[in-house]
Amino acid sequence: MRFLHTADWHLGRLFHARSLLEDQAHVLDQFVALVRDVRPDAVLIAGDVYDRAVPPPEAVALLDDVLARIVVDAGVPVVMIAGNHDSAHRLGFGARLMAAQGLHVAGRTGPQASCVTLHDAHGEVRIYALPYAEPAAVRDALGLDLPSHEAALQAQLAAIRATHPPGVRAVAVAHAFVVGGAVSESERPLSVGGSGAVAAEVFAGFDFVALGHLHRPQTIGERVHYSGSLLKYSLSEAEHMKSVSLVEIDGAGQVTIEPIALQPLRNLRVLQGELATLLAQGMDDARRDDYIYAVLSDTGALLDPMARLRQVYPNALAMERTVLARSGQASAAGRQLRELDTGTLFANFFREVADADLDGDQRRTLDDLLADMAAAERESA
Amino acid sequence: MRFLHTADWHLGRLFHARSLLEDQAHVLDQFVALVRDVRPDAVLIAGDVYDRAVPPPEAVALLDDVLARIVVDAGVPVVMIAGNHDSAHRLGFGARLMAAQGLHVAGRTGPQASCVTLHDAHGEVRIYALPYAEPAAVRDALGLDLPSHEAALQAQLAAIRATHPPGVRAVAVAHAFVVGGAVSESERPLSVGGSGAVAAEVFAGFDFVALGHLHRPQTIGERVHYSGSLLKYSLSEAEHMKSVSLVEIDGAGQVTIEPIALQPLRNLRVLQGELATLLAQGMDDARRDDYIYAVLSDTGALLDPMARLRQVYPNALAMERTVLARSGQASAAGRQLRELDTGTLFANFFREVADADLDGDQRRTLDDLLADMAAAERESA
Repeated sequence: MRFLHTADWHLGRLFHARSLLEDQAHVLDQFVALVRDVRPDAVLIAGDVYDRAVPPPEAVALLDDVLARIVVDAGVPVVMIAGNHDSAHRLGFGARLMAAQGLHVAGRTGPQASCVTLHDAHGEVRIYALPYAEPAAVRDALGLDLPSHEAALQAQLAAIRATHPPGVRAVAVAHAFVVGGAVSESERPLSVGGSGAVAAEVFAGFDFVALGHLHRPQTIGERVHYSGSLLKYSLSEAEHMKSVSLVEIDGAGQVTIEPIALQPLRNLRVLQGELATLLAQGMDDARRDDYIYAVLSDTGALLDPMARLRQVYPNALAMERTVLARSGQASAAGRQLRELDTGTLFANFFREVADADLDGDQRRTLDDLLADMAAAERESA
Repeated sequence: MRFLHTADWHLGRLFHARSLLEDQAHVLDQFVALVRDVRPDAVLIAGDVYDRAVPPPEAVALLDDVLARIVVDAGVPVVMIAGNHDSAHRLGFGARLMAAQGLHVAGRTGPQASCVTLHDAHGEVRIYALPYAEPAAVRDALGLDLPSHEAALQAQLAAIRATHPPGVRAVAVAHAFVVGGAVSESERPLSVGGSGAVAAEVFAGFDFVALGHLHRPQTIGERVHYSGSLLKYSLSEAEHMKSVSLVEIDGAGQVTIEPIALQPLRNLRVLQGELATLLAQGMDDARRDDYIYAVLSDTGALLDPMARLRQVYPNALAMERTVLARSGQASAAGRQLRELDTGTLFANFFREVADADLDGDQRRTLDDLLADMAAAERESA
């Protein structure tokens, strides 16, 4: 049985204030063509389909179009789950109606994981869809006290194992941060005041685990796999090879994973050097439309470098100067700040103002407050 | 052939800062039971399904549940269009997938009106779905220059007539303000600087026109029908009889329309009299949970009348005092203000400030600006 596994489309995402919708539509056209070509038994989309709970209407229209082309036109079923960026309610609209057509959407976490059963020459394969959910939401659905993401996922997986017939191949589609995975700047942390990470071992017994959340394509062990995001969504991903994954499970449950690259409309590249050199090189650059982040090594004054860069690279996003970074560390510090979560930022702020670290009680109060705020934001979305 | 025609559900609406979701779910439960009981050939939902372009997630979940119960569980097809309160893109998500299951959603206006064909013993009935669209959106879809709502609707209907086979019964589902219709306070005007109204004659040739927009159930002529809104959404509707409409079209195209009342969880009532009288009557009022708007005729001072009213009528919404209204007209003026559109409000403001009326040029500039703003708001929703 063969799947195309993808995740983290983040439709509607802005990058340096630019909409990436055209770029997203461009690679999704290739993805639809790939689906028609490969004709997998199913497409697995492991969450963060949209970049935010209320995506722009153009992103809704794009998803609608892509899914209709895969499910209706190509006749290939889709199993899609909500990620931490999606609104479970909104993504789940029409799920019962669309399931009959082959679009299986898991938005909210229910008492039982939704399951899609497919068949090949070797028998059944059951695909269990586990949308992202806060531990509190899983606790409500299952009626168990679950203190962490790991405990929540474990409880859901235990419930699946309790009814899964022995000898039948099992696939899980989930959105989680598995311990040991390599992170990127564009992933929103799953948890405040705690890693939110889960051990890969919680998925023991599954023949394949199609994950979303981490944007770098990677496999943890042999069967726990991140397809990676659709596009490069942060500078830290400039060197990634973005791809979707063609996964084959044979009759014995043996898995092979093949990455298939999609060609972006505009690549994201970091160019380093003196401005004059970059401008000169740019004249011969066949991909001048790429998104460019320039790291300028000039030591003297530069007149309007961004405008000059854009004359050669019209989609240049931003620049930094190494000389400034070396002297004041301003830019490097800024980049570092963006990587910190809110709790750490607040703790740093507290230290600056109060000249003391948060004590254990204070830190717990802060963590509780941030968790409440995150939950409230999710509720209202 | 029989239809259940309803419209203007406004799911997610707030009324005096209270969510009406529980009230909406209550009558929709009755509606689903009615569908199972009557077993119409189709349910027609003529727009303003949601109260706003981005409805709260609970409203999305409610609509999802109601539609699944009608289409999947009861097996009755639904034709649903976007109204001026809905986001065409968002409501239209999954339309191609859901159509195969019997949920026909028309969100955006396309070059051709979507058409659902049903059959009875007398032959075909074609149901044309015409979602609400600004004249500019219809112009883009049809490639015609259309100055008004009437012209836009006329062009769409002309395109339908050009291909509709003679002798086949035709039904239109639309969201429009038909000349002669009685308005309520809770309808958002379709047009700024112009009535947005269309003559009933534009629908000539259709056997039945299932309309949404006006909240009072009413029939204009014999075949152009507003089912009215699901609930009373403004004080001006306190005396309405809210209902859904059971419509029967016989083989000869003869139409009968029967209103069927749904029982609200809490009725909306205006009570008039002295506070002490209302409180005394309230003790014997079996429907003390109703939404109450009190018009108090007391002439003397009253200590905290709202709190006292709520001790008897826990869901009392608001009150006004006739004595204050008579002296200062404050409250009546306030109510009147709420009925005015933005253009008129601005014109009044201009008169106060500039001591002169807007001249023709100024009025046109204002109208253009307001139309642009309304269009931009719709675009971004």
